[in-house]
Amino acid sequence: MERIVQKYGGTSVGTVERIRKVAQRIKSTYEEDNEVVVVVSARSGVTNDLIARAKSLNPEPVEREMDMLLAVGEQETIALMAMALHALGVPAESRTGAQAGVITDRAHTKARIKRIEGGDIPQLLENGKVVIVAGFQGVNLDGQISTLGRGGSDLSAVALAAGLKADRCQIFTDVEGVFTADPRIVVDAVKLEEISYDEMLELASMGSKVMQARAVEFAKKFGVMFEVRSSFNQKPGTIVKEGVASMEDVLVRGVALDKSQTLLVVSDLPDEPGTAATLFSALAKANILVDMIVQNIGREGKANMTFTIPKDDTRKAEGVVNRVFRDIGGRLTRSTDIAKLSVVGIGMRSHSGVAATLFTTLAAAGVNIQLVSTSEIKISVAIDSDKADLSAQVAHKAFGLETLGP
Amino acid sequence: MERIVQKYGGTSVGTVERIRKVAQRIKSTYEEDNEVVVVVSARSGVTNDLIARAKSLNPEPVEREMDMLLAVGEQETIALMAMALHALGVPAESRTGAQAGVITDRAHTKARIKRIEGGDIPQLLENGKVVIVAGFQGVNLDGQISTLGRGGSDLSAVALAAGLKADRCQIFTDVEGVFTADPRIVVDAVKLEEISYDEMLELASMGSKVMQARAVEFAKKFGVMFEVRSSFNQKPGTIVKEGVASMEDVLVRGVALDKSQTLLVVSDLPDEPGTAATLFSALAKANILVDMIVQNIGREGKANMTFTIPKDDTRKAEGVVNRVFRDIGGRLTRSTDIAKLSVVGIGMRSHSGVAATLFTTLAAAGVNIQLVSTSEIKISVAIDSDKADLSAQVAHKAFGLETLGP
Repeated sequence: MERIVQKYGGTSVGTVERIRKVAQRIKSTYEEDNEVVVVVSARSGVTNDLIARAKSLNPEPVEREMDMLLAVGEQETIALMAMALHALGVPAESRTGAQAGVITDRAHTKARIKRIEGGDIPQLLENGKVVIVAGFQGVNLDGQISTLGRGGSDLSAVALAAGLKADRCQIFTDVEGVFTADPRIVVDAVKLEEISYDEMLELASMGSKVMQARAVEFAKKFGVMFEVRSSFNQKPGTIVKEGVASMEDVLVRGVALDKSQTLLVVSDLPDEPGTAATLFSALAKANILVDMIVQNIGREGKANMTFTIPKDDTRKAEGVVNRVFRDIGGRLTRSTDIAKLSVVGIGMRSHSGVAATLFTTLAAAGVNIQLVSTSEIKISVAIDSDKADLSAQVAHKAFGLETLGP
Repeated sequence: MERIVQKYGGTSVGTVERIRKVAQRIKSTYEEDNEVVVVVSARSGVTNDLIARAKSLNPEPVEREMDMLLAVGEQETIALMAMALHALGVPAESRTGAQAGVITDRAHTKARIKRIEGGDIPQLLENGKVVIVAGFQGVNLDGQISTLGRGGSDLSAVALAAGLKADRCQIFTDVEGVFTADPRIVVDAVKLEEISYDEMLELASMGSKVMQARAVEFAKKFGVMFEVRSSFNQKPGTIVKEGVASMEDVLVRGVALDKSQTLLVVSDLPDEPGTAATLFSALAKANILVDMIVQNIGREGKANMTFTIPKDDTRKAEGVVNRVFRDIGGRLTRSTDIAKLSVVGIGMRSHSGVAATLFTTLAAAGVNIQLVSTSEIKISVAIDSDKADLSAQVAHKAFGLETLGP
C-alpha cells in the first residue's frame, strides 16, 4: 500500500464529464490498494467569472474578500468530486483547505504555507476513505481564509505530500510531462522521464508553463519527488526529483523559449559608482522585473547598459528610464522585442563547451546573439524574435535532445 | 446607536446591480450611526445550478457533500457584498457561518442551530465595521460545514439577532410585508403593520410564502421581534412579535389559500380501535404529510375517513391506502384536488362567531364546504378548487380585512 497525493487542475475538472473521468482514475488508484488524497482546483473558468463579478462591483477589491470569494471555486469542486466518487462506489470525503490544516501566513491572495497540520486526513485514510482537498486555499492564524496565488493548487499538493509523508505525488495536468522543448515549435521534442528540481525551476521561470516555480521550490526544499503527467491519458509522465549523478551525463536537458521580452539599450550614462543602482532601483520601484543585464563602456567614458524586461511593461519602463535620464543623464538608444532562448541542464555544472556549442550552432543558422546571461545550469541568449523558433530547433538538434526520450 | 441585523434574500442580491443597491441601503443604515450585521443568501439561481450539477454526477448525493457544495453560494455573496460596501467607502468584513459561530447539530442539509457563538463579530462592530454573514450555513461540533435547509437564511438572521442581542432584526424580501390576503387574488388586501408570531406561523404553514415557519418559531422561542419588508422600496413592512392584548381586538388578521392539496375519502373501513392508526402510520412511513382529518361512521358499522394531503403525493398516497385495504379492508371512494381556505387571528381565542360568519359567507357565495379543521387561532375549510379565489375574496370582505391597513 502506498500513500498517494494526486492533483488535478482546472481543465481536468472543467466539466461534469471530466470530473466523472477523473473520478474513474481516482477509483483505479484507490482499488490498487492505495491511500489516496486528491487535491483539486476550481473548474476552469470559475475563478475568472468570480474575479469579473468582483471587479464589476469594485475595481480594487480588498484582498481578504478576494480570498473569501475565490476559495468558493475549489470548494465547489471538492464536493462534486466526492459525489462523483460515491456514484462509483468509492467512499470519499471532501475537506476545505482550512479543514485540511493548510496553515498560511497572513498575506492574502499570495499567502505562504507555514505548515500542514492535516486535520483528520490520516484518520480518514485509515478508515479507507479517499480524501478530496481544496487546493489553492488555506487558513491563517486568525482563522481567515487565505489563498496561495497562481499555481497554488500545485503547491497545495506538494505541501500535503510532504505533510502527510506521502509515498508519491502526482500532478495531473493538460500536458503529458516535461518536454525537451515545446513540441509545437520543435517537432523532435521528446518527453523526459526525469528532470531535477533545478532544471525544472529554470524551465518554469523560462515560460515553459508546466508548473509554477513556487511548487517546485517547495518540493525541492522538502525533498518531495513528484510526477507531472496527463489527466487525459494513461502514459507515465516526468518525474521531478533531486538531481543525481547519473542525470549529469546529460549536458542539456531542455531548450526553452520566452517570446515576451523587450530589450532596452541605454547609452551615455555616467560611468561612475551608483549609476546602475539608480537605474535599476527606479525600475524595481515600478515593479518591473529586469531579467538579463549587460553593462559595457561606451565612448568618452560613458557607460552603456543593455537589459531585458517583460514586453507588457515596455511603455512603463521607457517612462521610468527617461525620468532617470533627467537626473543623471543618458538616453534610450534602442527598444526592441526579442526572444530569449535558454538551454538548461545540471550536467553543465561539470562540463564546459555548452556555450561554445550553442554560439556556434546559432551562428551557423545566421542568428545574431544580442545578449548572453548564464547561471550554473543554464545559458540564455537574447535573439531576434523572428529567429526564435529556428533557434530552438537548431539548438535542440545540436544537443541531441531528441535522443532523451524513453 | 442601535444594533441591527438585516437579512437580504437571493432575489435581493441576484445580480451585481442589486448587490450594489443593497449595499447603498446598508450604507444608509450604517451612516445613521448603527451597528449593522447583514445576513445574505446565495444569489438567486446559484443554489439550483449547484444542485443540478451535483445531481448530474450523482442522483443521490450524500448530504454532507451537499452542504459542502451549497455553502459556496452564500460565501460568494458575502465577499461580493463586502466589496460593494468598500466601493461605497463603508468598512465591512465578511464571515462564513462557521466563522460567525453558528453552531448546529450534525443533521446535514437540515441542521438545527444549537447556539450562536458570534465569533469576532462583537469586536468587528466595535471597530466600526459592517459584518456580512453567510446565511443558511453553520458548522457542527465536528467542524463540518452544515446547512439549515429551506428558509435557512431567515433562521440565521433571527438566531444572530438573538445571539448578538440586536435591537432590531429586519428581513428584506421581495414582498412588502405580510398582507391580509394574497393581493393577486384579493384586490382589497392590505399590508399589516404588525402580526403575532402565532398568526404568522399559521399563515406560513398555510402557503403564504413570506417566511418559513422555522425562523418564526425560533423568533417566538427567543422573543426576537422582527420586521418583514421589501428590499426594493423604502416602505415600512410588517412587525412580527409576541401577541399583545390590543392585537386581540382584531378577530381575523388574514385569509390564506393553499391550492396544492388533494382530498381523499376512504370508506368501509372496519370501525374498530387501531384502524386510523394503521392507515395514518402507513402514510407517515411513506413521508406523506396528512393535513386535515375527519372521521365519521358510515353504513353498517363501517367507518369513513376523509383527509387531505399535498397534491404532489396523491399517486403515492393512493398506493399506500390501497395496500392498507388489502390488510384491513376498505376502499378509496374519492380523490379530488381541493383548496384549503384558512382565516387566522389571535382574537379568535377570546371570541366566538368566527366560524359561523365564515360558513354563512361561503354558503351565500355558493361554496360547498367539504371539510373543516380548527386550531385556537385558525379555521380552515376544504373547498372546490375552482371556488378558491372567490372564497378568499368574500371571506376577506366578511371580516372587514381591508380596514386593517395603516
